[in-house]
Amino acid sequence: MGWDAHIETFSVLYPTPISTVLELVAPSRIALGGQEPAVPGDPSTADLSGALPPYVAYQGDGDVTAAVVYVDYGMPEDYDALAARGIDVRGKIVLARYGGGWRGLKPKLAQEHGAVGCLIYSDPADDGYADRDPYPRGGGRPAAGVQRGSVQDMITYPGDPLTPGVGATADAKRLTRAQATTILKIPALPISYADAQKIMAGLEGPVVHGRARGALPFAYHWGGTDAVRVHLAVKSDWSMKPIYDVIATMRGKTLPDEWIVRGNHHDGWVFGAADPLTGQVALMSEAKALGELARTGWRPDRTIIYASWDGEEPGLLGSTEWVETHADELARHAVLYVNTDENGRGFLGAEGSHDLQHFVNAAARDVTDPQTGMSVLDRLRAETRAGAYVGAGGRAPEVAVLEAARAGDDMPVGALGSGSDYSAFLQHLGIASLNLGFGGEGAGAGSYHSAYDTFTHVTRFDDPGLVYGAALSKLVGRIVLRAADGERVPARYGDFAVTVSRYVAEVKKLAVDQRDKDRQLGDLRRDGVFKLASLAEDPTVAPEDKGVTPLLDTLALEDAADRLTRSARAADAALERAATLPPATRAAVEADLRSIDQLLLDPAGLPGRPWYRNLIYAPGTLTGYGAKTLPGIREGIEQRRFADAATYVARTAAVLNAYAARLDAAVALTKATAP
Amino acid sequence: MGWDAHIETFSVLYPTPISTVLELVAPSRIALGGQEPAVPGDPSTADLSGALPPYVAYQGDGDVTAAVVYVDYGMPEDYDALAARGIDVRGKIVLARYGGGWRGLKPKLAQEHGAVGCLIYSDPADDGYADRDPYPRGGGRPAAGVQRGSVQDMITYPGDPLTPGVGATADAKRLTRAQATTILKIPALPISYADAQKIMAGLEGPVVHGRARGALPFAYHWGGTDAVRVHLAVKSDWSMKPIYDVIATMRGKTLPDEWIVRGNHHDGWVFGAADPLTGQVALMSEAKALGELARTGWRPDRTIIYASWDGEEPGLLGSTEWVETHADELARHAVLYVNTDENGRGFLGAEGSHDLQHFVNAAARDVTDPQTGMSVLDRLRAETRAGAYVGAGGRAPEVAVLEAARAGDDMPVGALGSGSDYSAFLQHLGIASLNLGFGGEGAGAGSYHSAYDTFTHVTRFDDPGLVYGAALSKLVGRIVLRAADGERVPARYGDFAVTVSRYVAEVKKLAVDQRDKDRQLGDLRRDGVFKLASLAEDPTVAPEDKGVTPLLDTLALEDAADRLTRSARAADAALERAATLPPATRAAVEADLRSIDQLLLDPAGLPGRPWYRNLIYAPGTLTGYGAKTLPGIREGIEQRRFADAATYVARTAAVLNAYAARLDAAVALTKATAP
Repeated sequence: MGWDAHIETFSVLYPTPISTVLELVAPSRIALGGQEPAVPGDPSTADLSGALPPYVAYQGDGDVTAAVVYVDYGMPEDYDALAARGIDVRGKIVLARYGGGWRGLKPKLAQEHGAVGCLIYSDPADDGYADRDPYPRGGGRPAAGVQRGSVQDMITYPGDPLTPGVGATADAKRLTRAQATTILKIPALPISYADAQKIMAGLEGPVVHGRARGALPFAYHWGGTDAVRVHLAVKSDWSMKPIYDVIATMRGKTLPDEWIVRGNHHDGWVFGAADPLTGQVALMSEAKALGELARTGWRPDRTIIYASWDGEEPGLLGSTEWVETHADELARHAVLYVNTDENGRGFLGAEGSHDLQHFVNAAARDVTDPQTGMSVLDRLRAETRAGAYVGAGGRAPEVAVLEAARAGDDMPVGALGSGSDYSAFLQHLGIASLNLGFGGEGAGAGSYHSAYDTFTHVTRFDDPGLVYGAALSKLVGRIVLRAADGERVPARYGDFAVTVSRYVAEVKKLAVDQRDKDRQLGDLRRDGVFKLASLAEDPTVAPEDKGVTPLLDTLALEDAADRLTRSARAADAALERAATLPPATRAAVEADLRSIDQLLLDPAGLPGRPWYRNLIYAPGTLTGYGAKTLPGIREGIEQRRFADAATYVARTAAVLNAYAARLDAAVALTKATAP
Repeated sequence: MGWDAHIETFSVLYPTPISTVLELVAPSRIALGGQEPAVPGDPSTADLSGALPPYVAYQGDGDVTAAVVYVDYGMPEDYDALAARGIDVRGKIVLARYGGGWRGLKPKLAQEHGAVGCLIYSDPADDGYADRDPYPRGGGRPAAGVQRGSVQDMITYPGDPLTPGVGATADAKRLTRAQATTILKIPALPISYADAQKIMAGLEGPVVHGRARGALPFAYHWGGTDAVRVHLAVKSDWSMKPIYDVIATMRGKTLPDEWIVRGNHHDGWVFGAADPLTGQVALMSEAKALGELARTGWRPDRTIIYASWDGEEPGLLGSTEWVETHADELARHAVLYVNTDENGRGFLGAEGSHDLQHFVNAAARDVTDPQTGMSVLDRLRAETRAGAYVGAGGRAPEVAVLEAARAGDDMPVGALGSGSDYSAFLQHLGIASLNLGFGGEGAGAGSYHSAYDTFTHVTRFDDPGLVYGAALSKLVGRIVLRAADGERVPARYGDFAVTVSRYVAEVKKLAVDQRDKDRQLGDLRRDGVFKLASLAEDPTVAPEDKGVTPLLDTLALEDAADRLTRSARAADAALERAATLPPATRAAVEADLRSIDQLLLDPAGLPGRPWYRNLIYAPGTLTGYGAKTLPGIREGIEQRRFADAATYVARTAAVLNAYAARLDAAVALTKATAP
């Protein structure tokens, strides 16, 4: 295709199943589990004998038989609900439903609470018949569909468990498997709701009320008694395996040392037609188009690198090992990383470094939505406004987002958490990153990580006509070309400053609200309110008293956010006039700003997870996919590590001040040489 | 029992089923409907051959075969959702689920939208397995359970359809059946979800998203195509039938012309163990206790009348006809009406005239909650505070309620809508009324109006040990005794004034919010936002533009509320010192205030429903059970009858001014004779 392409190989610890056993032991013996069945009308599913059976990678092998406790999504607040009812998971197998947070947190929290095994099933409330017809009538998950996935403890560090922080090259120094903290200790298995239903039918204990229940047609019970016992055994092949990244380079003609990196993974759990191929095909189309351009003699100013990652599914292996291997070069050269992954019909979703917000909006303005013929940016604004008008139903947008949509301003981009290959770029190296895709019409979600993620499913439900795949390649193609050929790094620092100020306000409010809630709890406990309000059929005790959140001194942070705001305003204004500067000055300014996002790193990283060094963006330790912004502070408050919160107020202020100082330096350069 | 009791008989138009037919015609022919089956372990249900089959009284007989449209709760906003999808119910049979508003509104709105028939089913989301185990494992509605009931258009007027406003005595002047506007025009039938499921399984059209779906285990579709056709035929016996009210009187010794009326109905749909007997048994216990007291020679100061109403279920027949028959006497003598109905385990629920708020709280303080041993008032406060702390999940209380619970102040009582026998007293005659009961632990709701509302169900789930029945008789007994024997009418007018001021603020906010929403809609329509946000799989068009809510002049109302606040404060202060007044003055003040609540009537009544004359409290024309306060104004705004809203600002101000003037007169009397 006109690229300089090669394959880069890493050797990683990548478990695959030798055997999985799941059976109901009481109230009666029923064999459960096993491969998903064929679906009529979908030829891809006709023979699944060679496909990976339902399995979650990096669970801890084991063979256990125990009583079952339903734990809803298996998130921390769900264990609080169990504790209020005196239900303990120690020595039990938990049954969690998918959703509410990252898959890997479910067995991790289960083992922390003393469970001996973990089953994860797909409740029809979450991606099944509650919102769409099951496949093949619609795109929803059918009764026998199972979501595979990774349960690696990726919020500690992603990538090969044996080589944290360094590339898994042939000669890398490796931990032993026992030393690798990202491998779980209890057996876990994903199952269908057809199987879950058989387990849940016999559960005893209080009825599960409200949002903690799913959409199966019976009253849910928390369980925990010996009425229902399950035998779960998983045995894996823990051998080292090779993974293959495809790296294609097109050298820049004027600024070859500035790199624009663009990636999508190529590995999938079974067929992977939606995940990753809907994104991968867009990447290939862009590469092909750039190759055609190159054949005409065109060359980009900057160097463009297209990467097709392997091993994303088990734990962002390909991207992480590549980034760790090339960390020094990337820190010197990489200007931008643009990621995509699964893509489908609907509305633009953009997340990333906020100094790129305006750049993304400008590209989105120029891409036509295939359904409406308007720009994808205008369709996103319309969706936001209609959602706010219709109200409730989970569609109510944030105030800042709605205001932007109404005013026709740039739409705010979201913060990056984790779950795809941008993680090592943004959160380990601090390279400005974007993650782009379309979605939200929702018909397709039910095939995710199952054997039903096929060409037939994608073309019938996820992206009929593959038109949103084409829209994605047009959007990302523009972004890559404009970044590679632009006069300067396409940043607008004021957008970052505004966003940081919002985050600062959020963490302040979080501390105040949590303190208020703590004091309320104290009052309610003192007055014996929970005992009085407890229900005869579902008796609950008062929530544990965790003390009162102290007043947190955030002045240093507020001061840094103020300084950033002023510095960013000055820098944006100066850079507007950059075209008038002498070329040498412009180059010097560029050199100063190219790596500015890397200043958001702290070499010590986040508490308990030094691999994550970005003090503005991280995946939440208790959300996984979901971002926590100003994570050292925010999670310090939420998790009641108040000393950490105070420490990270200072550290976060320091990185923001460094960022502002770099802006000030650039402005000073422009003044010094102004004509 | 020591009472002067008699039976009072009325002759009313009371339809009963001759035949009901329900069958699925397409996609295949399946017979549906019929009597509910026996439930193992509940002897009452063993032979239901003589029981009323599933039926809704005052539907319009007919025989129709048509396609089916699912209409969610069948409330106005549900028809908006259908309209946005271009789905029309004209010529079709609607399938509505119970809940979201009064049963009778479902066929009424269906016929207004052109439907030819109406089926109403009990979705397990609302009183079935979504929140409790189905009977007999738990108290939830089982698959074959059916809710009977009335669909009389009781929001126009309740009682016998042939004698609006007058008692249905033997010689009353009657309308013809054709003239009676409260009888519906299309056939309707209540069904089980076992039956509904068979109809819904074949429905086509877009998938129903979000809260509009229930808890059945498949994707809901709106339907409307000929894929599903149903045959519905209902034939009733429309003969006149007698109803029997039991009226027991205990004449007062010092103030025999002041009447305290206490009632509960005795009719039920099948066994009626919970509805009405949980309330009826409490009433009988009180009557028995008062009779025992009377045998000791005691007599109340005021006259006490205990009433056991017939025909509440079909349309508040017994109470309405009695009140209409005795309207003049009641207007002269009745001081208070105290109602109960179904009662169960849980928390105190009190609704009524707000000048009685403190009186109710004082009684609730003195009654012990059987589960916790604290007062029922303290348990209510605890439930409110715990609900607010736990948050969301529908338990979040109103601000004023939460503040009262926290401060240990009187808990606000709710406003009375309709659905039980207080309606004629409060809303037609303006007699101060209360409706009291316990509930909210929720285990029992699934037997409502079905053949499973039995002694076994009540004692296992609704009120095990019947202890809340005893608590209810203790509460109401205290209220009746204190009202009958107290020095004065137990009112505190400031509570009413505070409540009215809150309602005034609400209607002002309603008008402003609606105006804002109208303008938003105009903007969104102008910008074509709905077309852009429409989903390929569920295309919707913009909501209809209904114009912009005008600015509403509420100054007269605000002025009246202000005056009421000042007059009430003065009156409460003066009455605190009433004990020091000469007896003749006290009697004159009493005479002035005894009927003060009747000043809230306007002889013209509410727009379109002159029977409802109370300008402060009414059942909502589009909610049925639920109260609308300041109904002339509030519904004028909501239903965009802005001229009515303006008219009722003036009329409502006038009744509030009359109420304030009466207070002023009482205060003047106390000053004139102050020692």
